[in-house]
Amino acid sequence: MKLYDMQMAPNPRRVRVFLAEKSIDVELVAVDIAKREHKADDYIANINRMGQVPTLELDDGSHISESMAICRYFEEVQPDPPLFGHDAKEKAAVEMWSRRAEQNVLLGVAAAFRHTSDFFKGLEDQVPAWGELNQAKLPERFAWLDAALANREYLAGDNYSVADITAMIGVDFARVVGMKVSDEWPNLARWHASVASRPSAKA
Amino acid sequence: MKLYDMQMAPNPRRVRVFLAEKSIDVELVAVDIAKREHKADDYIANINRMGQVPTLELDDGSHISESMAICRYFEEVQPDPPLFGHDAKEKAAVEMWSRRAEQNVLLGVAAAFRHTSDFFKGLEDQVPAWGELNQAKLPERFAWLDAALANREYLAGDNYSVADITAMIGVDFARVVGMKVSDEWPNLARWHASVASRPSAKA
Repeated sequence: MKLYDMQMAPNPRRVRVFLAEKSIDVELVAVDIAKREHKADDYIANINRMGQVPTLELDDGSHISESMAICRYFEEVQPDPPLFGHDAKEKAAVEMWSRRAEQNVLLGVAAAFRHTSDFFKGLEDQVPAWGELNQAKLPERFAWLDAALANREYLAGDNYSVADITAMIGVDFARVVGMKVSDEWPNLARWHASVASRPSAKA
Repeated sequence: MKLYDMQMAPNPRRVRVFLAEKSIDVELVAVDIAKREHKADDYIANINRMGQVPTLELDDGSHISESMAICRYFEEVQPDPPLFGHDAKEKAAVEMWSRRAEQNVLLGVAAAFRHTSDFFKGLEDQVPAWGELNQAKLPERFAWLDAALANREYLAGDNYSVADITAMIGVDFARVVGMKVSDEWPNLARWHASVASRPSAKA
């Protein structure tokens, strides 16, 4: 089994943190985004037709893409510790908060970055006004996260889950567009210090 | 238990089709988007702080939002028939194809519609250039779906799943921006005729 990985990008980090929480070791294969290795003919033909990282290669030669699909695979083959929730209600809460963290924070930051950064000029279709709208909304999204964390330890409730992984990585990624956690959002700051101090956060 | 619903919108339909496939009856409460009932003080204060539909109200008074979180809840309380996959590998495939159908089709159509339609003028922050880019990409997204369906019956493999529900609803919703399934995409047309003929599609 191998995981096609990219050290600097937020989505592969979601999988690495998830695996660290489960104490699962998987061989990592570094894909160099600056060299466009994820768009190379061989990668497109044999590993991921959409040119995405991360992609998991199973021992039977088949591939799973999409960070949350890869995490879901490992949750099924090694349920302990559960990171997608313990019972029906908690599983629904984890799914709900994972999606909100993804839509409101991680994808918001990604849109702000990709549609305005020179790095993506000529590589992607940029709509600067879309990037600027997403950038302008980031403070209210941090405030939303702060309110969500006011009365509980973790995003989906009492237990650390994949929703915390996505939210932490979205918040950390926001540094690329100049947003940082601060005391302006005390619940967010308390939660971020907690999740960032877990050994898995360094994965 | 009650489901706050909106007949015309695509996301609530995902939950209704899912429930029909499981033969689960839930009381529906119609929320009128034209009257802005989903943004009314009472709805925001007591049902969904983000003003979203669908929202499921459990008998203990708690709420679950996000279509896929609601579906996940029902998958857990009534696993049969499984709509999120049977084993680890199929569960990962369903998650992967669900997300791709959502990102590439359903959210693409929604962006094309919401950022250009007069209906949302003044109600949402519109970026017409973003809507137009998404609109321009729809033919390649239908072609992508067509290619994905070339060698298999359903989107995630041999079994009908929640990925088919999301893809069907994304394709159906594309009518609002002038896109229709046609023989230009024969695999897509064959698959669409199949999923649209299931009794659940009318839910």
